[in-house]
Amino acid sequence: MSRVSAAVPLARLSVNQMTVRQLSLPELVDGCARLGVPGVGLWREPVRAYGVRAAARLVRDAGLAVTTLCRGGFLTAVDPAGRARALDDNRAAIEEAAALGTDTLILVSGGLPPGGRDLASARERVADALAELVPYAVERGVRLAIEPLHPMYAADRCVISTLAQALSVAGRFPAPGVGVAVDTYHVWWDDTAPAALARAGAAGRVHAFQLADWVTPLPAGALTGRGQLGDGSIELCRWWDRVEAAGYRGPVEVELFNEGLWAREGIGVLEETVARFSTLFAAR
Amino acid sequence: MSRVSAAVPLARLSVNQMTVRQLSLPELVDGCARLGVPGVGLWREPVRAYGVRAAARLVRDAGLAVTTLCRGGFLTAVDPAGRARALDDNRAAIEEAAALGTDTLILVSGGLPPGGRDLASARERVADALAELVPYAVERGVRLAIEPLHPMYAADRCVISTLAQALSVAGRFPAPGVGVAVDTYHVWWDDTAPAALARAGAAGRVHAFQLADWVTPLPAGALTGRGQLGDGSIELCRWWDRVEAAGYRGPVEVELFNEGLWAREGIGVLEETVARFSTLFAAR
Repeated sequence: MSRVSAAVPLARLSVNQMTVRQLSLPELVDGCARLGVPGVGLWREPVRAYGVRAAARLVRDAGLAVTTLCRGGFLTAVDPAGRARALDDNRAAIEEAAALGTDTLILVSGGLPPGGRDLASARERVADALAELVPYAVERGVRLAIEPLHPMYAADRCVISTLAQALSVAGRFPAPGVGVAVDTYHVWWDDTAPAALARAGAAGRVHAFQLADWVTPLPAGALTGRGQLGDGSIELCRWWDRVEAAGYRGPVEVELFNEGLWAREGIGVLEETVARFSTLFAAR
Repeated sequence: MSRVSAAVPLARLSVNQMTVRQLSLPELVDGCARLGVPGVGLWREPVRAYGVRAAARLVRDAGLAVTTLCRGGFLTAVDPAGRARALDDNRAAIEEAAALGTDTLILVSGGLPPGGRDLASARERVADALAELVPYAVERGVRLAIEPLHPMYAADRCVISTLAQALSVAGRFPAPGVGVAVDTYHVWWDDTAPAALARAGAAGRVHAFQLADWVTPLPAGALTGRGQLGDGSIELCRWWDRVEAAGYRGPVEVELFNEGLWAREGIGVLEETVARFSTLFAAR
C-alpha cells in the first residue's frame, strides 16, 4: 500500500476479479477495501462457487460496489436447443446481477457456430436473442452492455468486433436496457471507434468502461496477453478523456487477463494495479 | 497432380512463395509450371539470395508471371536516419519489382515506433513517405499496393488495419501509382470492408487480391496461423465475388503463413493448395 498516496483519484476505480483471479473473493474484497478501491467487477463462475447471496453480502458489508457482472451472451447458436439453453443461462445471469446489486451485465456475444462462416447472420441472432432478454433485464433493474471484442476473436468468441457494430445492435432497443461496454483492449486500434463512442454517449448507451493495455507478442490462443496499465501501446488517458467527453461518469474497471500477473502473489498485483492507475490518471 | 483435373479454372491462380517457403525458387517455379499454375508471388529475401536477375529469368523461362513482390513498407520510423533507411530500402524494392517484371509491390506499413502509442501520427508518416516513393515507383512502372493488416498487428507490424484506412491513404495519390492489396485473412471480419472495396474498385485501386483462411486457435505471436483454403471461417467465394464486382480481373494469390504447412513436403502442399483452389472455385 505504501506506493499509493492518499491523494490519488481512486473514486472511479473498480478492479475486475479476473485481474487477480488467484485471489479468493474474500481476499479480493478485503484487499480492495484496504487499498481504497471502491468497486469490483465480478465473474459468474467464482461468484456462483462462493454463493451469489453470500457474495453480495460480503461485498456490501465491506462498503464496496459491484460495478459489473461478467458475463452473459454467447447468443449465436443456430439450433433451437442451443438457443434455448443460452437464453436460460442469460436469464440466470440477469438474476445474479440483480442479486449482486449491480446494474450492468456484460455480454460477450459469441462466435460462429461450428463450421459456420456467416458473420452477418450470427450478429442477427444476437439481436434476436436480445429482443427476448431485454424486457426480462429491465424488469429486474439490469441493463445489458454489449462488449465488442477485438476482431481477432470474431470467429470463436464474439461476432461483434467494433463499437459501431455493438451500437448498431444496441440501438434497436431502449437505451436504459441495452448499451455498450467500451474496453480499451478491444477498440484501441479502431479509428472509427471515437465517433461511435460519441454517438453511444449521446444516446445514453455507454454502460461500462474497462481498461487493459495492448502488449506484444500475443500468447498462443490470444486470450491471456492483456497488459498491465502503462506497459503497452494504448493511449489510456486519451480513451478515458473520450469516454468522459461522451458523458460517461461511471466506474473505470481494470480487467487484465494475463498469465504473468496470475502467476504472481495476488495482493501484490492488486497493489501494482492501484499504483499504475493512480500514476497514469493522477492529472485527472 | 492427380487431384487436379484439367478443367479447373487455374488461369487466375498465383501461389505466393511463402505458402511453400520450404521449396527453393527453382522447385517452386518447376512445381507451378507442371501443375498449370500461371503465377507466383515472390518475397524479396529469397529472391535476393537467389539473385534478382537470375530469378526473373528463371520465372520468365518457365512461362510464369510474377504477380506481386512482397514487400516494401515499414515506413513509420520517427528518427530521420530510420526514415532515410526505410526510403532507401523501398526504392531498392521498387527496382527489384521492376527487374522481376511485376507491376505490383505490396506494402506492409509498419507498426508503432518503440514506446510509441500514436497510431494516427504513424499513419501520417506512412503517407508522407509515400509522397516521396510514388514518383520513383511510377517512373519504373511499379504500382504500390497498401495492404491493411488485421488489427491484431496494429502495434507491431502495420498501423493500417482496415481497407477504409488503406484506401484513405492511397486516395491521396494517383490511382496508377498507389492502390490497396485485399487479403481475406486481414479483412474478413470487417463489415465496412465490402463498401471500401467497392470504392477502391471504382477508383481503379484494387491492385492485388490474396487468399488465406482464418483458423483458430491463433499460435503464439499470431503470425503463422493462416489456414489452408477451406479449413477456416472465411467466405472465400463471396470475397472473390466482391473483388470481381469491384472490377478486379487480376491474379488471385494464395498466401499462407502456416507452421504446419511449412513442416510438410513442399510439392505436396503445392498440390493440395491447387486442389483446394480448384474445388472451392470450380463454379466460377
